[in-house]
Amino acid sequence: MPRAVREQQMMDAAVRTFGQLGYRAASMDEIAELAGVSKPLVYLYLNSKEELFTACIRREAAALVAAVQAGVESGATADRQLWSGLGAFFEHTASNPDGWAVLHRQARTHGEPFAGEVAVMRDEIVEFVTGLIGAAAREAHGGPSDRDAELLDRDVAGLAQALVGAAESLAGWANDTEGVSAKEAAATLMNFAWAGLGNLMRGVRWVPSAR
Amino acid sequence: MPRAVREQQMMDAAVRTFGQLGYRAASMDEIAELAGVSKPLVYLYLNSKEELFTACIRREAAALVAAVQAGVESGATADRQLWSGLGAFFEHTASNPDGWAVLHRQARTHGEPFAGEVAVMRDEIVEFVTGLIGAAAREAHGGPSDRDAELLDRDVAGLAQALVGAAESLAGWANDTEGVSAKEAAATLMNFAWAGLGNLMRGVRWVPSAR
Repeated sequence: MPRAVREQQMMDAAVRTFGQLGYRAASMDEIAELAGVSKPLVYLYLNSKEELFTACIRREAAALVAAVQAGVESGATADRQLWSGLGAFFEHTASNPDGWAVLHRQARTHGEPFAGEVAVMRDEIVEFVTGLIGAAAREAHGGPSDRDAELLDRDVAGLAQALVGAAESLAGWANDTEGVSAKEAAATLMNFAWAGLGNLMRGVRWVPSAR
Repeated sequence: MPRAVREQQMMDAAVRTFGQLGYRAASMDEIAELAGVSKPLVYLYLNSKEELFTACIRREAAALVAAVQAGVESGATADRQLWSGLGAFFEHTASNPDGWAVLHRQARTHGEPFAGEVAVMRDEIVEFVTGLIGAAAREAHGGPSDRDAELLDRDVAGLAQALVGAAESLAGWANDTEGVSAKEAAATLMNFAWAGLGNLMRGVRWVPSAR
């Protein structure tokens, strides 16, 4: 069997073990057994538990980013693009619950260098979402003046942070709650987010009423 | 000086040091120096770096929950309650950036038992927000049938997760981005969230159009 294939099998076993037991509790013995290889072979190929975990984070992060980017229906209307991207995100996290647990729970709760690896992926997703929302906003406004654009950029950056944070939180909840499908989670967030985003793009804002 | 006062001074110094340098890099020497006490006194009062960090997490979590609960204008309209709660949240995280860094960044990235301490606080906030949204939804629907109520409960739980995740994400962004005020962050989230929540409460849903 080629080395690359063996490595992927080891990483499949590692993602499952890290995702279900946590980084600390997972043992290289269990990972080797689940992968159907000897422990020395795991060390030979992937060096150490720390390097194996880092490799898992990178692989799962790349797969998630790729799934979201591939899911977005480019050229569609802004709401349709957002919906398709969210759908792809929740489908990916629902069908890879161990991968998502590695990224969202394990990697962030075991210090550096793991937390930094996930932060890079998160920045990438925020940037991608910022691009989506920004394009929709520019479209809706039909080319703002410079001053408007400046205000808009900060709004858009904040909205992207809000959306990504909401999606992360919902993905964990959906995976932990029996009977919540990926589609439901996406619809919840879309219902939550779209009306607000749509209003903002039309220049309609929520204003606190006098008490 | 009474022991309780001394302890609070040590914890003030510890929160600042942990928040700015991170759990690993922070040293008990620095904390003692910043608090103006001897290192043995810190150990005498708070036992170990781990226990000191745990005490900081608990204090900061309790302060944040109390600030949000105190901030909500009880008896006001649902949007006003949400707005006042969000305002209190972002004001607290903006005026206690080190405390927020301890809770959101440090405690979650240094494994157990710290991550568990923060999870308890998060559950408390989610429950509180679920109560707010649920009360508003019941009000809007004027007492749903049992079947409606069941659907509603799950919707509400998901929305609370989305809102809390969005708020966490925005608070980190606001603290890291120069010139973003607590009020702006609250307004961004309110604009983002309220139109969607308001629509849902009126039974209006976003539906994907045919492609």
